[in-house]
Amino acid sequence: MIDDLIERMLRGDKRAAARLITLVENDEEKAREIISKVYPHTGNAYIVGITGPPGAGKSTLLDKLIKVVREEGKVVGVIAIDPTSPFTGGALLGDRIRMQRHSTDPGVFIRSMATRGSLGGLAKATNDAIKVLDAYGCDVIFVETVGVGQIEIDIVKTADTVVLVTVPGLGDDIQAIKAGLMEIADVFVINKADKEGADATYFELNLMLDLEKERWEKRGWRPPIIETVATTMRGIRDLWKAINDHRKSLEESGRLAEKRKFRAEEEVKTIVSGRIARAVEERLDDEEVSSLIERVVKREIDPYSAADTVLEKALGVKI
Amino acid sequence: MIDDLIERMLRGDKRAAARLITLVENDEEKAREIISKVYPHTGNAYIVGITGPPGAGKSTLLDKLIKVVREEGKVVGVIAIDPTSPFTGGALLGDRIRMQRHSTDPGVFIRSMATRGSLGGLAKATNDAIKVLDAYGCDVIFVETVGVGQIEIDIVKTADTVVLVTVPGLGDDIQAIKAGLMEIADVFVINKADKEGADATYFELNLMLDLEKERWEKRGWRPPIIETVATTMRGIRDLWKAINDHRKSLEESGRLAEKRKFRAEEEVKTIVSGRIARAVEERLDDEEVSSLIERVVKREIDPYSAADTVLEKALGVKI
Repeated sequence: MIDDLIERMLRGDKRAAARLITLVENDEEKAREIISKVYPHTGNAYIVGITGPPGAGKSTLLDKLIKVVREEGKVVGVIAIDPTSPFTGGALLGDRIRMQRHSTDPGVFIRSMATRGSLGGLAKATNDAIKVLDAYGCDVIFVETVGVGQIEIDIVKTADTVVLVTVPGLGDDIQAIKAGLMEIADVFVINKADKEGADATYFELNLMLDLEKERWEKRGWRPPIIETVATTMRGIRDLWKAINDHRKSLEESGRLAEKRKFRAEEEVKTIVSGRIARAVEERLDDEEVSSLIERVVKREIDPYSAADTVLEKALGVKI
Repeated sequence: MIDDLIERMLRGDKRAAARLITLVENDEEKAREIISKVYPHTGNAYIVGITGPPGAGKSTLLDKLIKVVREEGKVVGVIAIDPTSPFTGGALLGDRIRMQRHSTDPGVFIRSMATRGSLGGLAKATNDAIKVLDAYGCDVIFVETVGVGQIEIDIVKTADTVVLVTVPGLGDDIQAIKAGLMEIADVFVINKADKEGADATYFELNLMLDLEKERWEKRGWRPPIIETVATTMRGIRDLWKAINDHRKSLEESGRLAEKRKFRAEEEVKTIVSGRIARAVEERLDDEEVSSLIERVVKREIDPYSAADTVLEKALGVKI
């Protein structure tokens, strides 16, 4: 069945691709089989991460970006990562639905990811879905997150180009961006640039970038700041150009190869961690491990010593 | 030096406790030593997790709760987990500063955690800080998160009692709570209950709880809904009573022991995962692992097979 699905997917069958992603998400054994078979067909897609605070209009922006990319005849994949936070879930749904109008276009594949569960689950599911979309023939894959939580940031960090979307009037958040996300952004977007405060936001961001001059010189790329009004298409083509300029810069400097090595490392680490976590989970029912935990509860041993025993005896790890 | 610090901490020296938490946060080897020595002195503190969306007024609520708990002469610890998201960072600081006025009280220990970094880092740091505060003599330790991101939710889940704070007028978010956090909440709080829409929020929450009747019957505890106005102290004593009622229910039903076993399991798992992640990180520089990653990039092997090799050869794991 899997071979048949893969064959159909490689011939451009969208439903087969969707089915494969579902299998990969839900079944560890099948994920293994599917990814190993699909993997030789990957490596062509360019991965663009899009992140920013809730309400920055990322989905509308993406909706318009898809339009521009489609005009060039490119096949587009979108992986929209729903926040693991239940508090920001509601607001996103409307945007996502708007974006879905592209889903009748055979050259656009949109997928939501909302894996709540074991650590590394979301990252692994996203990596695997990217592989399937890459093999399916996507030229560009957008990975959209709302940038809440370390896991989501880790995911977007593995993209070839990271677009950070902000809006005027977030005030304090500029400081927050400075502290947290600046180093991962390759292109800054000020969306809703027709709103009051856009100039001030531009000024602040620009100043922030100026202060980090050395970083950009070393990297050979200073993140441009693109002002957009997604609803009217303003700046969308500039944004797409900026993404392509960054791609060219990465290719010419050899940094694309570095980025892809980093991504491969992260992927292998994610799979290793996931497998260890699962193995520990299984061992918790073993009498040995279970009694170990009881002893921790009774304060007879401390958690670190218990972890040693789990690592050495139950998992046989030599570290 | 560590022995001296621990001795002083056990005698109630706040600065020694603070110093130990810093050591535990920043140094894996020292964390091990400190926790193993401190661990026999732990197990007395009752852990209360407080979570809710940004803007729900959690810090003000906590500020007032501290006051009530202090009136009973109890020693209070607070671990305030700063969101890993850089987008919500700014807004919290003001509240946190407000809470700091308790920090001149020798019976109140407040600590912020903002470990951005490797997976499991925040959870491990929080677990370890809880241990130190427990040994220091805290009777109650509040762990406050803004409930963004899976890691933060995982942390709060290990508390003895979980308080979920919401505010009127979040609308869609009630649905989101239903989907995500309801199962982990033991006490619901509607803060800012003097605002319009408080009745509707109460009605909705109550309805939601009614729909899950069987769950509460099985658990022997139906989460109460407490209306508070933190700024005027309204409902704060009721909230503290509800927390204590829940504690009593847990103790009488034997579920407290279960919860503590769960927490010990989570702790051991966190330490195991962290150690494996670090070991993999170190091995990435080995020639063997490095060339493996290169082969993944070249599509000669897939990430799953590479993960197998890392697990078997580099870590010697038998799974």
